[in-house]
Amino acid sequence: MADPIIARLEAVIAERRKASPDSSYVAKLSARGRPRIAQKIGEEAVEAVIAAIQGDGKGVVSESADLIFHLLVLLADMGLTWADVLAELDAREGTSGIAEKLSRPKE
Amino acid sequence: MADPIIARLEAVIAERRKASPDSSYVAKLSARGRPRIAQKIGEEAVEAVIAAIQGDGKGVVSESADLIFHLLVLLADMGLTWADVLAELDAREGTSGIAEKLSRPKE
Amino acid sequence: MADPIIARLEAVIAERRKASPDSSYVAKLSARGRPRIAQKIGEEAVEAVIAAIQGDGKGVVSESADLIFHLLVLLADMGLTWADVLAELDAREGTSGIAEKLSRPKE
Amino acid sequence: MADPIIARLEAVIAERRKASPDSSYVAKLSARGRPRIAQKIGEEAVEAVIAAIQGDGKGVVSESADLIFHLLVLLADMGLTWADVLAELDAREGTSGIAEKLSRPKE
Repeated sequence: MADPIIARLEAVIAERRKASPDSSYVAKLSARGRPRIAQKIGEEAVEAVIAAIQGDGKGVVSESADLIFHLLVLLADMGLTWADVLAELDAREGTSGIAEKLSRPKE
Repeated sequence: MADPIIARLEAVIAERRKASPDSSYVAKLSARGRPRIAQKIGEEAVEAVIAAIQGDGKGVVSESADLIFHLLVLLADMGLTWADVLAELDAREGTSGIAEKLSRPKE
Repeated sequence: MADPIIARLEAVIAERRKASPDSSYVAKLSARGRPRIAQKIGEEAVEAVIAAIQGDGKGVVSESADLIFHLLVLLADMGLTWADVLAELDAREGTSGIAEKLSRPKE
Repeated sequence: MADPIIARLEAVIAERRKASPDSSYVAKLSARGRPRIAQKIGEEAVEAVIAAIQGDGKGVVSESADLIFHLLVLLADMGLTWADVLAELDAREGTSGIAEKLSRPKE
């Protein structure tokens, strides 16, 4: 279901996870464990937030790319895929419309 | 370049941004301004991090969907698109390989 | 070791943790569990970051207060105290100077 | 109003801000600008959240110390002090009780 760029990234990440931590950033990050991968999600999100507040469109695109990349690494580490996330987005829209669904107070 | 689900979401968001804040979550959030949209990115990322540390795959998928949804709202608010993010990911991979590119210290 | 305001807050939080979730924010938040308390730390930090980037001093003070308050709730939930955090800060400064200590790359 | 450890830290930070970026972490971080200082707040908060979810008390104390330290650096960069944050906490408790005050929806 993923578009070709995401699909290729997922394939690259799956392959690099099997590589030596010395030769690949993905292998090194994955070897350090899931908390460290999750931490990167938090860090990249904060950088995207900062770029947004600064009105820095180029920065938002760059930090969003970092965020998506690390999200794909996390999904791979948990045996999940981008298709799972798309299916979730699709299911929400399919039932009651995503805007309505999300507008319900979570808490 | 985006897959159909993301493309449809972007269309829905673009339309809802023009709706009354009373009738739509996207309109309401956008009316509150970019800092509030950006704040949601940070919040959803933290929730994804927590689900990941808990080993909660279903939670990671759900929070990732929330994160992507709000990222699309932010991109729309800044006149950017998902295609811009994909192009950035593609450019990185195209030049020197994304793993290598990202492994360079950002500082 | 804590100053009077922090000490009083810790006492209030300790007492409210025993109250009914219906009657107290601290009791309600604590009843929802540690992940939810931790989530608040992340959220308040993001709000402080946004206020800082906006150059909003009043906002930074307000969000910092929210952050410290929720940090005290988290510490209480883990059987820890503000004095533990102060002791950690003191130990760092005491040995090699905090600036030097913190300047070592963490990872 | 601050306790001696925080007061000493504030004094050290004020002095180090005037030092050469080559000789001091505080000087180096401050020279990189407020967005970078703010980013550290977000990063340390995420690390504290992860330690909390892991039930790692020692980690929570360590990351909380990092968080407070960087918050003091941010306050200094904005011409604010820890006393400002304490005064805000005190004012909330003084009026209607902090638990009640904070329980009002922020929104």
